[in-house]
Amino acid sequence: MNVKLKWLRDRIRTQDLQGMIVSNPVNIKYLTGIDAEGILLITLKENIFVTDSRYVEAVNSNLTIEDEIVVYDQKNLSKDDEANIFMFCENVGFEEYYVTYHDYTKMLQKFRVNLMETEKIVESQRVVKDEKEIQYIEKACEITDKCFEYLQDFIKIGMTEKEVASEIENYYRKNADGVSFEPIVATGHYSSMPHAIPGNRKIKNGDIILIDMGCKYKGYCSDMTRMLFVGYMEEEYEKPYQICLNNNKAAEDEIKDGRNIKQVALNSNNDLKQNGYMPLHSLGHGVGMDIHEEPIYNTNIDQAFKEGMVVTVEPGVYRPNQYGIRIEDTVLVEKEGVRVLTKSPKEPIIIKG
Amino acid sequence: MNVKLKWLRDRIRTQDLQGMIVSNPVNIKYLTGIDAEGILLITLKENIFVTDSRYVEAVNSNLTIEDEIVVYDQKNLSKDDEANIFMFCENVGFEEYYVTYHDYTKMLQKFRVNLMETEKIVESQRVVKDEKEIQYIEKACEITDKCFEYLQDFIKIGMTEKEVASEIENYYRKNADGVSFEPIVATGHYSSMPHAIPGNRKIKNGDIILIDMGCKYKGYCSDMTRMLFVGYMEEEYEKPYQICLNNNKAAEDEIKDGRNIKQVALNSNNDLKQNGYMPLHSLGHGVGMDIHEEPIYNTNIDQAFKEGMVVTVEPGVYRPNQYGIRIEDTVLVEKEGVRVLTKSPKEPIIIKG
Repeated sequence: MNVKLKWLRDRIRTQDLQGMIVSNPVNIKYLTGIDAEGILLITLKENIFVTDSRYVEAVNSNLTIEDEIVVYDQKNLSKDDEANIFMFCENVGFEEYYVTYHDYTKMLQKFRVNLMETEKIVESQRVVKDEKEIQYIEKACEITDKCFEYLQDFIKIGMTEKEVASEIENYYRKNADGVSFEPIVATGHYSSMPHAIPGNRKIKNGDIILIDMGCKYKGYCSDMTRMLFVGYMEEEYEKPYQICLNNNKAAEDEIKDGRNIKQVALNSNNDLKQNGYMPLHSLGHGVGMDIHEEPIYNTNIDQAFKEGMVVTVEPGVYRPNQYGIRIEDTVLVEKEGVRVLTKSPKEPIIIKG
Repeated sequence: MNVKLKWLRDRIRTQDLQGMIVSNPVNIKYLTGIDAEGILLITLKENIFVTDSRYVEAVNSNLTIEDEIVVYDQKNLSKDDEANIFMFCENVGFEEYYVTYHDYTKMLQKFRVNLMETEKIVESQRVVKDEKEIQYIEKACEITDKCFEYLQDFIKIGMTEKEVASEIENYYRKNADGVSFEPIVATGHYSSMPHAIPGNRKIKNGDIILIDMGCKYKGYCSDMTRMLFVGYMEEEYEKPYQICLNNNKAAEDEIKDGRNIKQVALNSNNDLKQNGYMPLHSLGHGVGMDIHEEPIYNTNIDQAFKEGMVVTVEPGVYRPNQYGIRIEDTVLVEKEGVRVLTKSPKEPIIIKG
């Protein structure tokens, strides 16, 4: 059995659970490598993956005896078989943040056990990445750096935001496993909206361009935001750019194993406020198999950074209807600091266009 | 208040509900036109949309007094305000197929009412389309026909499935509001897998190509599958092609207002079996704001086609590791038959490649 599945089995035992139902496909893939529709049942003695006939063959061919996972075709399980899966189990965990109320009631009927909330147990397991996971994220960041370099040549005056966003998608489809989220390309005053959708506005000389993008590589995500200036950099952008950049660097300098996440977020927010900008979103989030995952930087909950976490650092300064500037890295938390995985230059970049 | 919201209000009253919580963003958009994160609360007297500060302005600017929707910023609602929203309501509906178990428990605490299952009440309302919705779907189908015509010139020997899929995405991004699902481009023996993922296999002379694709237009989807043959059509494909085409036409001839859905699905399945093919998926599904929506063709549940439904008709014949042939239309159900909205030719098409 692999380390991840073993860790989870040990963990649920300490919580007085005799089994667990894993429904979230991302968690199933994390724990088992299985990439198919179905449900993972961790019972007293076994790990069972129940799927449908379309997937049985493919799933089995990717598993070995060492995986210790039994694959069942849903249609070969009688109601009694299902009711017996968790025999001698009193309390069985389920994913209350993923399972709908309807599916919860169905599971109750089917398995006839007490279903217990597990408070994102697998999601918190995913927070600390192992070596292989870090390699995949590093590679996704490397491809993102190359894409950003490519864009500096590609972007021309007269192109629309949509055209640039399309090219990012094409680039990632060719050089990675596609995007990790719909790219944001926001030009001129549209950059002031943190979640702007690329539109038909044409790029012109003197424009500020915000590009927030990332790709997937072997199931893992990257996330980076950089600014481009077309032809020249308007004077009004200079000060806010420095404020944003200093904030980004200060936060990255603070982060290390053991440091309180809330405190780093508060420091960043206070710095933005002292400089006259309201923080419009959180400083960052975890990155892994999902583009947004644990830990969430939160100014309410106390939690420490841990070695092996991968998170974004993305302060932004926004003036409604004027401009928005955001500088975002994906970083790996280490014992004594961070390793910045997105290596694109952070000084203002002026393109010819 | 618009007709859709009024209909829903009347409907929940007949089910002894004094209010309803609508969480699914597609249902919210359908009922109100609002396209933002938030929750729609239908109370005894009011329609309330609770959202966060990012969206309040944009939502309000799209509403008029006639909409009779009050917009609140989540952060301006105290716990007491929330508890008072459903004052004098005993039973309030919620969407048990959408809401997670965790959110269900939060809603219970917040609103202090009995939360009652509503069995896809809005989804079943969406089943019959109005004139405007039909226009949007027609337009999405028209763009899909044009895309298919374009592809017949575009596809060349040596291209990969991925390259063709990319081009479909680009086409739809340029000419519509993007894809309604990831296109399937499956060549040669890969066509035998109903949900094949486009890969790096290169197209060669004599190939069979299955293309399943659709776009979005103003929030509404199209869905069509056609086959292409490169250079010539192998003799082995001729018979199964005719079986599939006849099955598709027979099903389309059967469908009309009042006809039993299960019966049409059974007839199609029996015809496939009599011809030596196991049906690997259902005959079709509803199409609208979601690419898969109600009604689901089901050989278990009795239900009648209704005028104004939009559904796919997509029989497929598959020989594992050899070939797959599927012919799929999006059709509008009318009083005396169907109007086929995807108009691409259904006779075998041979391209030069």
